[in-house]
Amino acid sequence: SKRTGYCENRMSFLSVREISPKVRSINPTELEPLVKRAAQIKTELTQGVRKSYKDVIDVCWGDPHRGGVKPLTFVRQVLAACMYPQLIHSDKLPVDVRRRAQRLLDVCDGESVGSYTATAGIPYIRSNLARFISRRDGGVPSSPENIFLSSGSQISLTHVLKLLIHNQASLPIGVLTPMSTYSTFKMAVEGLGGAVIPYYLEEERGWELRVEELRRVLREFKDVCNPVALYVINPGNPTGHVQSRTSIEEVIRFAAEERLFLMADEVYQDSIFGEDTEFVSYKKVLSEMGPPLSHQVELASFHSVSKGFMGECGLRGGYVELVNLDPEVKKYIYNIFLTDSSPAVTGQLALDLMVNPPRPGDPSYPVYAQVRPIKIILWKLMPQRNILEVLNNIPGISCQPITGGAFILPRLHLPQGAVRKAEELGMQPDLWYCKLLLEEAGVCVGPGCEYGQKEGTYHIRLRVLTPVDTMEEVLRRLKNFHLNFLKEFS
Amino acid sequence: SKRTGYCENRMSFLSVREISPKVRSINPTELEPLVKRAAQIKTELTQGVRKSYKDVIDVCWGDPHRGGVKPLTFVRQVLAACMYPQLIHSDKLPVDVRRRAQRLLDVCDGESVGSYTATAGIPYIRSNLARFISRRDGGVPSSPENIFLSSGSQISLTHVLKLLIHNQASLPIGVLTPMSTYSTFKMAVEGLGGAVIPYYLEEERGWELRVEELRRVLREFKDVCNPVALYVINPGNPTGHVQSRTSIEEVIRFAAEERLFLMADEVYQDSIFGEDTEFVSYKKVLSEMGPPLSHQVELASFHSVSKGFMGECGLRGGYVELVNLDPEVKKYIYNIFLTDSSPAVTGQLALDLMVNPPRPGDPSYPVYAQVRPIKIILWKLMPQRNILEVLNNIPGISCQPITGGAFILPRLHLPQGAVRKAEELGMQPDLWYCKLLLEEAGVCVGPGCEYGQKEGTYHIRLRVLTPVDTMEEVLRRLKNFHLNFLKEFS
Repeated sequence: SKRTGYCENRMSFLSVREISPKVRSINPTELEPLVKRAAQIKTELTQGVRKSYKDVIDVCWGDPHRGGVKPLTFVRQVLAACMYPQLIHSDKLPVDVRRRAQRLLDVCDGESVGSYTATAGIPYIRSNLARFISRRDGGVPSSPENIFLSSGSQISLTHVLKLLIHNQASLPIGVLTPMSTYSTFKMAVEGLGGAVIPYYLEEERGWELRVEELRRVLREFKDVCNPVALYVINPGNPTGHVQSRTSIEEVIRFAAEERLFLMADEVYQDSIFGEDTEFVSYKKVLSEMGPPLSHQVELASFHSVSKGFMGECGLRGGYVELVNLDPEVKKYIYNIFLTDSSPAVTGQLALDLMVNPPRPGDPSYPVYAQVRPIKIILWKLMPQRNILEVLNNIPGISCQPITGGAFILPRLHLPQGAVRKAEELGMQPDLWYCKLLLEEAGVCVGPGCEYGQKEGTYHIRLRVLTPVDTMEEVLRRLKNFHLNFLKEFS
Repeated sequence: SKRTGYCENRMSFLSVREISPKVRSINPTELEPLVKRAAQIKTELTQGVRKSYKDVIDVCWGDPHRGGVKPLTFVRQVLAACMYPQLIHSDKLPVDVRRRAQRLLDVCDGESVGSYTATAGIPYIRSNLARFISRRDGGVPSSPENIFLSSGSQISLTHVLKLLIHNQASLPIGVLTPMSTYSTFKMAVEGLGGAVIPYYLEEERGWELRVEELRRVLREFKDVCNPVALYVINPGNPTGHVQSRTSIEEVIRFAAEERLFLMADEVYQDSIFGEDTEFVSYKKVLSEMGPPLSHQVELASFHSVSKGFMGECGLRGGYVELVNLDPEVKKYIYNIFLTDSSPAVTGQLALDLMVNPPRPGDPSYPVYAQVRPIKIILWKLMPQRNILEVLNNIPGISCQPITGGAFILPRLHLPQGAVRKAEELGMQPDLWYCKLLLEEAGVCVGPGCEYGQKEGTYHIRLRVLTPVDTMEEVLRRLKNFHLNFLKEFS
């Protein structure tokens, strides 16, 4: 072994010290042990282990299908026919499904979903997305050339970050990031060697984004990093807040003044359920603000088939639209996307189906139109009336009203005894709470520490896009658990 | 506009100067203009523009379906049934298809391909992949814990590179990379700020990998970068060479001596058509070399549903198996994969179908067994007998025999006049040749300069996994074009 330069008892040359410091700087998720334990408990239950509950209910993740929401028949029929084209010639599927499947196969090379596509996505689908965006934004023009598809919007987000974040200067590149936010975005910034600049949404005002807070953190962080981008999520994940047009205008003006690249994560744009609440895109507001801003502020807007009424997380279909980017810069974006070969084809086709649903008169329309309102009702009733009422009636829990998104983020006012106990165990108090809730009540929720929160505050995240009876059971179990918890640690 | 800090006629703040230097260092592909022009010509032909050919034949890319190879019925039926589960209850599909679809849906959360999966992939599928690997390697153990799925193997490759490449030291991290190789790997290394260390495969010996060449480049580059990894592709893309066990042993010993992390791209492992040629995996050879090497050399082996008999590039399903990695390091790999959320579910399911095809006795077996041999025959006959013979009989073209992979890489011995003409036009001679071949003969192939080649040599890459009659037409057109070309520029 001397000959090989290895020492016998050295198992491998690549130690943690030798891997990229950027990768080491990624803060791991707090959710993993929780999710693993949930799976274990499920197994224990099937093996007959006695618990005080008969099943584990998982409202931790954002995927609707996991929670029992059914996929849209039209979408799945078209995708099945694209997968197995013999179905196009069968009379088992409605004629509009078969026509659509044929149309989509016509734009796949070799008429197969098994072929690579153009790097930025199938041109026909990019054009349809541009038309959808322009329709959504009341006529604001959109060009297919500015739209890049990817296997999920998370990959588009990371690709845009790759463009912006480098390690050439003495200070790291900073990205203003809302707190609370979902964790993979923070991990992507860290993994590229960037600095997350946390700005706090104002819980007491329904998790509003306040420009004063953006100004404050920019002042605070200007000496430790070089801020180049502002990331916003509208509607909010996990806060459920939907920004008003005025708020968006303020944010755009701030981005312009500070010359920040705007990254608008708008994947929940279909998930609006507040009365008198409407989604307005950053691009529309920017366009309507007129020159010079409308031609200057650089914006990347993200959307996806994972959220809203589609809920097709597993298909991995997302896109980014780039606004006001220097054409030279766009060439480099293209090279970044190119390293992935091409985006998953079923995800691309699903994007097309999302923006071109069946229309009145189509055979699939009646079923499609019936299913969508049911989902909207499901969302409308639950969060607004029951969930908030139930939660706010539990002592030591308070929850802001939500108007969109997929989650609520109730606050836990934990007794001092509980916080001390968690500290003794070396755990974040809300993570410890979530572990106990899972063990004792079979309910899996996400801890606030995973998403970022003001120091000394504790939260849990629950998916509200959940069938009504499941959510009622979650609330029943949560209430019982919480009252016992208070009794034990107050 | 003064108020906003913008100058009226400045369109955007992010100029090329301000984007990440790593992104700027990516060498763009030479293929793009070629591929765009091919699409234009196709449109011109449908619009009735007169050409000397009736269609464009594209043998530039590696995807078999684009070239007219049909997907496997069993695979597509199962995936269609997973997409639209009502098909499981229909009698239109064979019973083993329906059973398999149900089994796969059982391991998807919420029984839907629309749910996110675990970050590294569905545990059931990881276990099946481990069993497949162990079977393939004659019993060498494989653990699901070491297998990470991704939306295509290209993403796994980039994720492993992210672990290895950093910019902390004064010298860039270097990755030994075969020449010729496909271009996205080089782009991935460059995009992370790494240095490609090109080692040349020996064309005259059928594109063999020679350890002396590895030693030579390591000596040459040791002062300009810090080499940490050795990338090999076996069977070769685009060379068609399959490494022998002895060659693999030599490479492993070299990696051990030089303490290089081995990245073995084995996505063409099913595409073997040389007589007396067999694929042996790096992992198997490493294991059989015994201690200490078998416990020391770090290896990442990649595989995919895009190549071989599946050819499902568009589904984006790949995996990496990690061998001998420090468990601490593996935790960080996990975090890298986590930033993508989870891999495309249809790609994951396709991996399962790849490693567990129908077995004798299953209703789908007869059709499946019939289709696979046809494909193998298609490959066997064409490259070995016709293609090489035809090519080597064209004056000024020579082609090495191939034993695997999807491509051949014939060499063009271009007349001086042609090389001068290309230089006058500011183009690489083989790129210019490919452009003319496309314009004048309607055949789209890749230029050697895209894949890297010894200075002063010129090549073209052709996909051999192409139906026989198409390939015959390609060779006819190429021969006519080439003879005219020689006449004009000799």
